[in-house]
Amino acid sequence: MTRNVAVAPDTRPEMYKMMCNAVKRSGATLTGVEDAEGLIWADPARPELFPEIVETATFLEWIQLPYAGIEPFANNLDPKWRWTCGKGVYAPAVAETVLALALSLSKNLHGYARATEWSGPIGRYLHGSNVTILGGGGITVELLPLLAPFDCVTTVIRKKAENLPGATFTYTPEKLEEVLETTDLLILALALTEETRGIIDKKALGLMPSHSHIVNVARGGHIVTDDLIEALKEGKIAGAALDVTDPEPLPAGNPLWSDPRCLITPHIGNTPEMGLKLLDPFIEENVRRFINNEELLAPVDVELGY
Amino acid sequence: MTRNVAVAPDTRPEMYKMMCNAVKRSGATLTGVEDAEGLIWADPARPELFPEIVETATFLEWIQLPYAGIEPFANNLDPKWRWTCGKGVYAPAVAETVLALALSLSKNLHGYARATEWSGPIGRYLHGSNVTILGGGGITVELLPLLAPFDCVTTVIRKKAENLPGATFTYTPEKLEEVLETTDLLILALALTEETRGIIDKKALGLMPSHSHIVNVARGGHIVTDDLIEALKEGKIAGAALDVTDPEPLPAGNPLWSDPRCLITPHIGNTPEMGLKLLDPFIEENVRRFINNEELLAPVDVELGY
Repeated sequence: MTRNVAVAPDTRPEMYKMMCNAVKRSGATLTGVEDAEGLIWADPARPELFPEIVETATFLEWIQLPYAGIEPFANNLDPKWRWTCGKGVYAPAVAETVLALALSLSKNLHGYARATEWSGPIGRYLHGSNVTILGGGGITVELLPLLAPFDCVTTVIRKKAENLPGATFTYTPEKLEEVLETTDLLILALALTEETRGIIDKKALGLMPSHSHIVNVARGGHIVTDDLIEALKEGKIAGAALDVTDPEPLPAGNPLWSDPRCLITPHIGNTPEMGLKLLDPFIEENVRRFINNEELLAPVDVELGY
Repeated sequence: MTRNVAVAPDTRPEMYKMMCNAVKRSGATLTGVEDAEGLIWADPARPELFPEIVETATFLEWIQLPYAGIEPFANNLDPKWRWTCGKGVYAPAVAETVLALALSLSKNLHGYARATEWSGPIGRYLHGSNVTILGGGGITVELLPLLAPFDCVTTVIRKKAENLPGATFTYTPEKLEEVLETTDLLILALALTEETRGIIDKKALGLMPSHSHIVNVARGGHIVTDDLIEALKEGKIAGAALDVTDPEPLPAGNPLWSDPRCLITPHIGNTPEMGLKLLDPFIEENVRRFINNEELLAPVDVELGY
């Protein structure tokens, strides 16, 4: 037994080709959308093509999106289909970026990179720090083992009241304010929803110690940008490394670009080179599960929107 | 039974006071140099004071230096005394700096730190890389556990033909050239001796893949600076992060400051803040061992010079 699976759109040739090959390797029959029971969406940059493309679908049951976050598709999340996304797929890449950004702040590498002459020693240990991670998803699961040798106290704040293996503490969001007060390093790795938008605002920043650092690899909208600009300028926190910004791309001239306490990276947690390499075996596996009626990886909860 | 131990010079008050307290906590009697059997050297920046200070010593058996590398004392290494140094003491701090620098190169953080506007994605995995580490001492011992979650192939090149626990391979220096050819990341964490000075020269750099990175936290003299400048300019290697330089401090205007592939940090592997915190319990322990005739930590081989 097999299933019909389509790949669309074909606007991004390298990705399209790789996804088609993954579908074939899985044992599915690669078809057009009109015959497809499953659809692999193959261009993260073109969600606006979706309505037109699925219009021709009659047998469609399942849609696989290539994103970790699915905001670009929020308006299309029809519960008549099963949706899966790329959450967790890119997590190993993003977890490396989190540690890179955290260590960069700890050792003032962003400051030294900008220097043109020898200067005094700045730097502190990551070892033994109080690390608070917002979000208990794939990035956090991949990050905790990378942090393990640093003997940090890791506090994960997640919606689900269930301990995350490898974390020192797991709490639900009610504890956030209390935990921020003793946080040395705050890592944002949660989904963007109406509840979490702007979760790091003037009040939250005001609770954090003045030596604390923030790393954001989730979505720019989790942080109120103007509040962060002010907190950095006034020294309410010691540094921020942002792989995502609000707005994104961050416009040239935004004060964060020139803030000595801030490092901006242009959403490199998952570069195309790294991303395709990770997505390829994942698509093959999820199509294989679809054929065999097994539980699909990375399901989207259409109600919750992630 | 106790022993007489002196702390000198007193030119660096914070360090002097902390070392005196460590001696007292160990159970030794704190005396002047004239009565001392052991001497704790308490100012890394003033080796020139040494001959004058030990002139008054009559009972001296043991000298504890505060350095990891002992070059500043090379001319004073009289074998009539036992010498110990700070090797291994600062290793946890330096190992963190190594990983910070390696990840910074992997994720182009030095490039992004210098950017003033959004740019394209550059970045690759450290995960699974071929990491070659020159030196099998304390830094390497502390670094291997930090690298372990990245599933790298770690090749340690050391003088001693003895496997280093945690390394995938351990070789003696004859293998260096062969290993360089498949090295993604080269880490210098060895002692500076006449044999290792300039070990990374034009020839060695020419053997490395064009995508490879170098991190140097050992001594600037391990790398022939002009050869590195050329290799970076010509793209023979992809990047270098140097916490030590030759000359050091690296003069303003040296081409490495402005090379987009290079990150210079001003010998921050061990900042004073981190260093004293690590040295304090170490001195206490070594004085305790001296009193009890136990094997001293971090002995210096006067013949080998490290």
